[in-house]
Amino acid sequence: MTSPHVLVLFGASGDLAKRKLFPGLFRLHRAGLLPEVRIIGTGRHSPGSDEEFRSSVAPEDGGEEWAEFASGIRFVVSSADDGDDLAAAVAEAEKDLGGDDVRRLLYLSVPPSAMEPMIAMLDSTGLAERAHLVLEKPFGSDLASAKALNAAVLGTFGEDDVFRIDHFLGKEAVQNILALRFANGLMEPIWNAQHVAYVQIDVPEEIGIEGRASFMESTGTFRDMISTHLFQLLGFVALEPPVVLDADALHEEKAKVFRAIRPLDPERVVFGQYAGYRDEEGVDDDSDVETFVAIEAHIDNWRWKGVPFLLRTGKSMGATRRTITLGFREPPLAMFAGETDGAPNELVLELTDEPRISLDIRTKTPGPELALEAHTLSLRFGGEDSLEAYEKLLLDAMAGDHTLFTSTREVERLWELCDPVLADPPPVHRYEQGSWGPQEALDLAGERGWRLPG
Amino acid sequence: MTSPHVLVLFGASGDLAKRKLFPGLFRLHRAGLLPEVRIIGTGRHSPGSDEEFRSSVAPEDGGEEWAEFASGIRFVVSSADDGDDLAAAVAEAEKDLGGDDVRRLLYLSVPPSAMEPMIAMLDSTGLAERAHLVLEKPFGSDLASAKALNAAVLGTFGEDDVFRIDHFLGKEAVQNILALRFANGLMEPIWNAQHVAYVQIDVPEEIGIEGRASFMESTGTFRDMISTHLFQLLGFVALEPPVVLDADALHEEKAKVFRAIRPLDPERVVFGQYAGYRDEEGVDDDSDVETFVAIEAHIDNWRWKGVPFLLRTGKSMGATRRTITLGFREPPLAMFAGETDGAPNELVLELTDEPRISLDIRTKTPGPELALEAHTLSLRFGGEDSLEAYEKLLLDAMAGDHTLFTSTREVERLWELCDPVLADPPPVHRYEQGSWGPQEALDLAGERGWRLPG
Repeated sequence: MTSPHVLVLFGASGDLAKRKLFPGLFRLHRAGLLPEVRIIGTGRHSPGSDEEFRSSVAPEDGGEEWAEFASGIRFVVSSADDGDDLAAAVAEAEKDLGGDDVRRLLYLSVPPSAMEPMIAMLDSTGLAERAHLVLEKPFGSDLASAKALNAAVLGTFGEDDVFRIDHFLGKEAVQNILALRFANGLMEPIWNAQHVAYVQIDVPEEIGIEGRASFMESTGTFRDMISTHLFQLLGFVALEPPVVLDADALHEEKAKVFRAIRPLDPERVVFGQYAGYRDEEGVDDDSDVETFVAIEAHIDNWRWKGVPFLLRTGKSMGATRRTITLGFREPPLAMFAGETDGAPNELVLELTDEPRISLDIRTKTPGPELALEAHTLSLRFGGEDSLEAYEKLLLDAMAGDHTLFTSTREVERLWELCDPVLADPPPVHRYEQGSWGPQEALDLAGERGWRLPG
Repeated sequence: MTSPHVLVLFGASGDLAKRKLFPGLFRLHRAGLLPEVRIIGTGRHSPGSDEEFRSSVAPEDGGEEWAEFASGIRFVVSSADDGDDLAAAVAEAEKDLGGDDVRRLLYLSVPPSAMEPMIAMLDSTGLAERAHLVLEKPFGSDLASAKALNAAVLGTFGEDDVFRIDHFLGKEAVQNILALRFANGLMEPIWNAQHVAYVQIDVPEEIGIEGRASFMESTGTFRDMISTHLFQLLGFVALEPPVVLDADALHEEKAKVFRAIRPLDPERVVFGQYAGYRDEEGVDDDSDVETFVAIEAHIDNWRWKGVPFLLRTGKSMGATRRTITLGFREPPLAMFAGETDGAPNELVLELTDEPRISLDIRTKTPGPELALEAHTLSLRFGGEDSLEAYEKLLLDAMAGDHTLFTSTREVERLWELCDPVLADPPPVHRYEQGSWGPQEALDLAGERGWRLPG
């Protein structure tokens, strides 16, 4: 059983805490999955009394149970300059929990610029002791800043105590990639360049910037999504079978994939910006920030040599999806001459909250001719027992399980791959809202096209 | 378009003609798939007037359309000793059809003992000219009798004009084996001993002998089913990719499979007889005829070395199915230690009239642990446009397409494999009606067991 924990949420008045963290903790509590905890929210500005704070983060369907769960939640003002009250509150909570094995989970949901000073405070106040540190991305904004941040973090915390969260990786279905690949005798034999013609990792989003203009303007979609989520998904799809499914082995294999990624060909990186973006409040009239990126990556190892990995993500697109598609090589179809449905076999993993696996196969068209038609075998799974990404990641961070978190080495290698694009970004192409991005991105996928949702 | 045909059905007063052939021809007519035809029923005893014959074979839902279709159907008495009236009727029908390209289809649905004399008559009357000959099984009762029959047939007809019908092979789903294997990039790579641990071809039948005691007593299930249907299915599952999907190439590859089948190990052949069989009318009180057979066959070629092919069929069993199951080798599951569902991946082709393909895969159990659970991706297909087996085979025989028929070489090789078992049959074990056969047969499948229906 996981040790009792004092959870300290930095940025507790923020959007993430209200939308994800408190509801997630409450759900874990209701499911009986949470160890004994004391929860302390903290931030620079007091939201009022503890009671007012609790109701400001209360989930809508909380009711009596929430009231009971929340009764121990406190808010303590702190800043990078002054953590004394917070340190005292943590000490008090630890005493309250009792026992020798109480751990701290410090969840830093703060702006990038606040990270380094905050870590200095955690060091000087002793809050860093016995603590797991959870960091929200961005983990820097390029290789140099990432290295600086990592140096600061690792000056105070051991690598084993740092949990860089990528909420994409908490999804059941990402873990299902591992189960699908390694628990099924028929998958791994075809999971390589000999049988796979292309891989698509497609994360379109229907929403626009939703009022987060300053974040988009300063970060852009390439930094926000490609350097983190999409490359991480690529890592799980492409890695060699690890010796065991533990964090070290997975990080090792993922790091090998990232090291084998060929420097990105500038000709195969497409930036886009949706029509109307410049009219959004808070956006420069002549902004060239990309709200869309599509790239073709290559992994120069024995398993994947020659297989294009197409990554695409953007705002204001035609659908919201997180789809991984493996397109299999065509068999010699001469024997079915002239009667073949055009689409090759594709294995599709849909990673949204309603995860699904589907597999296209061709069967004989019923009737006298031996003609072919395409069908899809499909399986929805998941359901009520699924943990929301943050819930899973919170539990793992408390338990000290790094499997779904990002290591220092991975972060720095991915910035190394991304830096040249950031230094010399490609032209930004306009695309219509509700579309699948600019034509240049559609062209990346060649004749086969991008897998359509549904 | 297929040439106009005179169809001559020998044994036209029989059960098969009424149940399958006339309804099948009528359905083909309604679907617009039949070439111009004249249909002549024949047999040793007149069923009365043509009108009486037509109504004796009328399908229940025929109505007006049947009446119109049937108006040209005649019945002519013939025997092995006297085919003159029949020859005259055929000549008249050909004249009626006109043109130079009229063909004959002679469909011999007669007892084995009547075959050779009948063929002599077809020769002497000239009926064999321009004719395709369709033979119903049994194609002999052992290697010697099969060779004698084949010699008689090939003394009068060319190999290309002989169509040995195996109605199992008319099933859409058997052809779907070909489509599945050869039109899908992800199937063929795993379709071999490296990835397949075992194959099961399972054809249990719920019905008992249904009044066909004399047939069962003289033939037995091994002759009736194993030497024909089940080995043919094995042939389609196991064959190497043919150069093209035509009859010659498929026969070639199927014959290679049959030649590579290792002589059956008497220890791996299980005969059974259902409890109560000896009480059936027409069955000997001490009959040792087998109503059930299960065998383990091995194919000694590069593709299948070491993979057991388990074949099972019987009467009065727990379900009626025609199921082909490929069990895939287990991956190294150490990484999921202690949390693995027991069943390996299986690909299941259900070949009944509601064909289905399903594929077991393991996925992650939703929830905090990386445990595994089994799911099945499933696809039903077929439907209204599907041709019933006899319909498809009648059309193919008229069109001269041998793809789904059995060649002389295959028939003789299969008898060669079966003869030693017939010469020295294994003991017959009792099994309960509605069961899955005797324990000895269940044991053949080892720990993994036979794939259960559903």
